[in-house]
Amino acid sequence: MVYDTIIIGSGAAGLSAGLYAVRYKLKTLIIKGDFGGETARAGVIWNYPGVIGIDGYELMKTMQKQAKDGGAEIVSGKATKITNSAVKRPDLSKQDPEVGAQNAGCYEVEVCEKKYTSKSIIFAVGTERGHLNLPNEAELTSKGVHYCFTCDSPLYADKVVAVVGAGDAALKGALLAAAYCKKIVILVRGDKARAEPVTLEQVLALPNVEILYNTEVKEIIGTDKLEKIILTKEYNGSAEFVLDGLFIEIGARPNNSLAIPLGAELDETGYLKTDPMMHTNVPGFFAAGDTVNLFGHFKQDVTAAALGSVAATSAYQYVQKHPNVCELHALEHNK
Amino acid sequence: MVYDTIIIGSGAAGLSAGLYAVRYKLKTLIIKGDFGGETARAGVIWNYPGVIGIDGYELMKTMQKQAKDGGAEIVSGKATKITNSAVKRPDLSKQDPEVGAQNAGCYEVEVCEKKYTSKSIIFAVGTERGHLNLPNEAELTSKGVHYCFTCDSPLYADKVVAVVGAGDAALKGALLAAAYCKKIVILVRGDKARAEPVTLEQVLALPNVEILYNTEVKEIIGTDKLEKIILTKEYNGSAEFVLDGLFIEIGARPNNSLAIPLGAELDETGYLKTDPMMHTNVPGFFAAGDTVNLFGHFKQDVTAAALGSVAATSAYQYVQKHPNVCELHALEHNK
Repeated sequence: MVYDTIIIGSGAAGLSAGLYAVRYKLKTLIIKGDFGGETARAGVIWNYPGVIGIDGYELMKTMQKQAKDGGAEIVSGKATKITNSAVKRPDLSKQDPEVGAQNAGCYEVEVCEKKYTSKSIIFAVGTERGHLNLPNEAELTSKGVHYCFTCDSPLYADKVVAVVGAGDAALKGALLAAAYCKKIVILVRGDKARAEPVTLEQVLALPNVEILYNTEVKEIIGTDKLEKIILTKEYNGSAEFVLDGLFIEIGARPNNSLAIPLGAELDETGYLKTDPMMHTNVPGFFAAGDTVNLFGHFKQDVTAAALGSVAATSAYQYVQKHPNVCELHALEHNK
Repeated sequence: MVYDTIIIGSGAAGLSAGLYAVRYKLKTLIIKGDFGGETARAGVIWNYPGVIGIDGYELMKTMQKQAKDGGAEIVSGKATKITNSAVKRPDLSKQDPEVGAQNAGCYEVEVCEKKYTSKSIIFAVGTERGHLNLPNEAELTSKGVHYCFTCDSPLYADKVVAVVGAGDAALKGALLAAAYCKKIVILVRGDKARAEPVTLEQVLALPNVEILYNTEVKEIIGTDKLEKIILTKEYNGSAEFVLDGLFIEIGARPNNSLAIPLGAELDETGYLKTDPMMHTNVPGFFAAGDTVNLFGHFKQDVTAAALGSVAATSAYQYVQKHPNVCELHALEHNK
């Protein structure tokens, strides 16, 4: 069984790539990983053009349905390794993508000890959540410590919650949580929030939300569940803050560890280097969504979805040119 | 009254730019022109990520509502002229956009004899419909000759209709019309359709649709309404084809005539030249959607919407840097 394309990731980029790939009649496998990516954790989304006020998780379920209804196969689990039969050849990574395509190899992706074979890859794993890396943080995750407003805000009806983060995602998450919680305190490390002005304005208008600037979490305390945190600065006369929930939303890093062994080039900020058509320097290996920096820091659902559709288009064109890349691979292996 | 940005066009790019612009708290005016652009005429859209099967016109109404609810002003009518107070200065078009921005001028846009003033422009007029340029074509428009499947297909319930065009839009339009019409004949000039494979497959599966290759319309005949067309090749034993409706969907050209006098550079295919952040070479003048070629021939609703959001982001950054560009302009004028 050889797929035309394997899409790694199931956020807006991966699922949109899936929708387009099946419309191009590509035999398509989506490796889910962390379902819905950033979007699924983003709370209610008001800035996706064409959809008024939708929970990010629901938006991702709709996109998944579109890809699935079109014929995409979807497997759960996380891709742990990608190999390409051509990568061992010398100087591949230095070649022009068009010329290098004659060195196109067959891809193998490992997921939970199973291997899947494909003519091309659309790499749309997005980014990895930032952690505070404090003692107890991992132990108390889902026991008071959370990274997903959409999933976990409803658990804190009439409770007291702190939010760590100053970006748009943190403040948007706080907006969502404010609909449930009694009190929300946003802890901002620096002296200003980096959110969209409109988001900040909405947060400031809420009576149950407070922002503390120049304030960090020093300790997370609790045994079976979160009990309190210790702040670097006093709040209401004490550095000790007794609370019910702690939501951490401090950005993300591109998760490119599977791409680097293939020889994929990164840009100066650590994101995958691509042209506007989502070609990386490795033939048959396309990227999309938050793993690339085409629009700089501006990373939205609609831009991820667009880049997914572009990557699928390039994968389609590539597979049309190299339909037998895995048969050649099999022949080589059987020599 | 000075706007922060005037968006020219109300297709997916313009309306998405509007949604983002108001979220950035920009004082925003959208000049509608041809409402909904290409999308409004596109029939039912199945490949917009996050929305399952929606009429393009409805999708555009939703995007318009998003921009309007956020505070965008919208005027009907077509922009007929754009002027910029800085354009007369020498060598502007040769300057780097960042450096050139010190020569930023105030924009004036004419719509139906009214003038609107703005610090920046987002140019999202899309493309202009292709016509056959045959006698009677203009006279019989909306009297049997149509360019909008979504608007006019329902008029042809149980009627016989011809479609001119071989692209995806033509075949998707035929799919929509097939739900109403008794019989649809698609006239393709060349020897193959250029639609997405999945679209072509869907069309071929319909019992009431037929494709005639290497066939063109030679004459359009009718007085008060369309009566028949003359083909370049016989169909059912005659070049004369008596029918009820003729839908023309033969592509589009970028409509850049308002941008050229500003000194905006075009690429080799006649589309506006931009970087990925939708900067043109003219300070404060941004482009988005089908008027640019960032993704080559691949032009979709989701890519247009994404580029609209990017253009709004760049306009926001520009207006933050040049908040007084129209006040300076007024001072100069009053000297």
